[in-house]
Amino acid sequence: MRDRLLRALRGAPVDTTPVWIMRQAGRYLPEYRKLRERFSMLEMCRRVDLAVEVTLQPLRRFDLDAAILFSDLLVPLWGMGWDFDLVEGKGPVVRPLERVDALEPMNLSRLDFVFDTIQQLKNRLEVPLLGFTGAPLTFASYLLEGRPRRDFARIRALYYRDPQAFHALMDTLSRHLTTYLKAQVDAGVDAVQLFDSWAGSLPSELYAAVLPYVQRMVDELTVPVIFFSTGSFHLFPLLQTLKGVVLGVDWRVPLRVYREGWSGPIQGNLDPAWLLASPEVFLPRVQQIVQEGHLFSGHVFNLGHGILPETPPEHLGHLVEAVHAAGCSAAASPSHLEPPRERTS
Amino acid sequence: MRDRLLRALRGAPVDTTPVWIMRQAGRYLPEYRKLRERFSMLEMCRRVDLAVEVTLQPLRRFDLDAAILFSDLLVPLWGMGWDFDLVEGKGPVVRPLERVDALEPMNLSRLDFVFDTIQQLKNRLEVPLLGFTGAPLTFASYLLEGRPRRDFARIRALYYRDPQAFHALMDTLSRHLTTYLKAQVDAGVDAVQLFDSWAGSLPSELYAAVLPYVQRMVDELTVPVIFFSTGSFHLFPLLQTLKGVVLGVDWRVPLRVYREGWSGPIQGNLDPAWLLASPEVFLPRVQQIVQEGHLFSGHVFNLGHGILPETPPEHLGHLVEAVHAAGCSAAASPSHLEPPRERTS
Repeated sequence: MRDRLLRALRGAPVDTTPVWIMRQAGRYLPEYRKLRERFSMLEMCRRVDLAVEVTLQPLRRFDLDAAILFSDLLVPLWGMGWDFDLVEGKGPVVRPLERVDALEPMNLSRLDFVFDTIQQLKNRLEVPLLGFTGAPLTFASYLLEGRPRRDFARIRALYYRDPQAFHALMDTLSRHLTTYLKAQVDAGVDAVQLFDSWAGSLPSELYAAVLPYVQRMVDELTVPVIFFSTGSFHLFPLLQTLKGVVLGVDWRVPLRVYREGWSGPIQGNLDPAWLLASPEVFLPRVQQIVQEGHLFSGHVFNLGHGILPETPPEHLGHLVEAVHAAGCSAAASPSHLEPPRERTS
Repeated sequence: MRDRLLRALRGAPVDTTPVWIMRQAGRYLPEYRKLRERFSMLEMCRRVDLAVEVTLQPLRRFDLDAAILFSDLLVPLWGMGWDFDLVEGKGPVVRPLERVDALEPMNLSRLDFVFDTIQQLKNRLEVPLLGFTGAPLTFASYLLEGRPRRDFARIRALYYRDPQAFHALMDTLSRHLTTYLKAQVDAGVDAVQLFDSWAGSLPSELYAAVLPYVQRMVDELTVPVIFFSTGSFHLFPLLQTLKGVVLGVDWRVPLRVYREGWSGPIQGNLDPAWLLASPEVFLPRVQQIVQEGHLFSGHVFNLGHGILPETPPEHLGHLVEAVHAAGCSAAASPSHLEPPRERTS
């Protein structure tokens, strides 16, 4: 197996910078859209043959350093006996949670299709397979709001009004999600990404109450964990206290700025919108990010969020080639020994 | 006229901390909801009698220090010959812009209902009246996307792909919006708030290109300008270079943290979700924010975003009383002479 990604995640030396892309199995690919015409998103998650096929699609086109399990973020809700649906043009609709104890303990047999998909993929892949789930806060936000909203105010209101109930919810969710992630590892994933998608809407005071649950999840896993959040630069003083994670960052702040409080492995962070410009325009930025990645003990190249559906697929091909070429030459140069540059913004 | 708000906006001494609330004329008020049952949001903006009535509703209940013109953020689009609609449960739907020169020069006569509303309000108010508009970036985002999206990627793509077209769009929009704001001032508003609602989705590099247009708008106005953005703490190094504005901040970061780069007047910043808890729970936090406000040359108390529709109206009454009581006693104490506290997050 090509282990460049796993080495970078662990901070070990690599031949070049590894790269994978959030939503690399997604709507920018015509072969994906063709399947989506016939099947709903959730059908594609549930049917092992389709989930395997869709996971493999981007790897047939591009020299990516990892595959990521094709699944929906909210799938583990089914394991807790909780239903949800994905409504076209609206996003997830979740039955609102009234009491924490209404969630059932994680019943993994309801999620067999996930673990079967992982096992089948492991037989066919020559690169590492990433598993994933949402962080407890993300699930709590959906369970309280019922649907995505800009600010997810209810989870904050619960914390202010009834911190005990808030902690009970975080505790329950983090235990169930750890069970789910451990089962992904048992089935064969080589590393996992934890998406804390709504962390950015929280004040630092409240996020400080959430972070120990994330740390506990990380501590219980035996594979590398990429912790990804967006719009969360105001939480960076807290995030830099996380131990044993790879920090996944969005596009809002240049990679080098994170060096002020983080020297461990990092993942990111090209703005997905760059890929709507031509390769001559975005490739210098790709090279710059690869260079800045050498300021850290390890760097996995990725976008700062999911690839946009309107991205021309061939642009991703150019990106992957450029990362490997730039990472290779940079690895041979001593530039990564330079001190961190000053923040210029 | 009670001028506490205007004094605080200018950094002059005040008898107590002034307070107004974003969306104070809004759905948390039963008398507002009653009108909304009969009229659409845009009908209420267009009909002067209704816009005046709705603006006055919260002032009948609460001892607020300002009124804010009732209008929709996108109303000035009509002045540029551009149509939009508000779709229930979906938000604004804007005809997508193909070319910058498709926008007509601001024709103020199409917006007479706004200026009539302002004039009628000025005859009836004993507190200052705030006008407002969106910042150029906000309009550009809606014009390119056609509807609100989480990340407004197209405006970023335009900048990367065609910076000249991006600057032409910012230039055009900022000129038109300045014309609109000046006409609000001519009609009688005492100060304005500029909402840069989507600033937080921009990388610092791109926001640096946007900020000069904001500064030019501020420089051309003769009344105090509150500049408000959300999720934008990563842009704080840039925002602190703004001259002649009151900095309006969201709830994500404690007010005292802004003291590290800003000593001018500030507005904010209680998380609106606090008001869903009981007054015993949220009042200590209100008092704390009032105290922290004394670290700045002026402080206007507000929420960090619009008041939530599910807020019990009487909670706002308690809040307003508490701000005035705390601001009054704090004004007499020397605590505001203490050095800024350390960032604790």
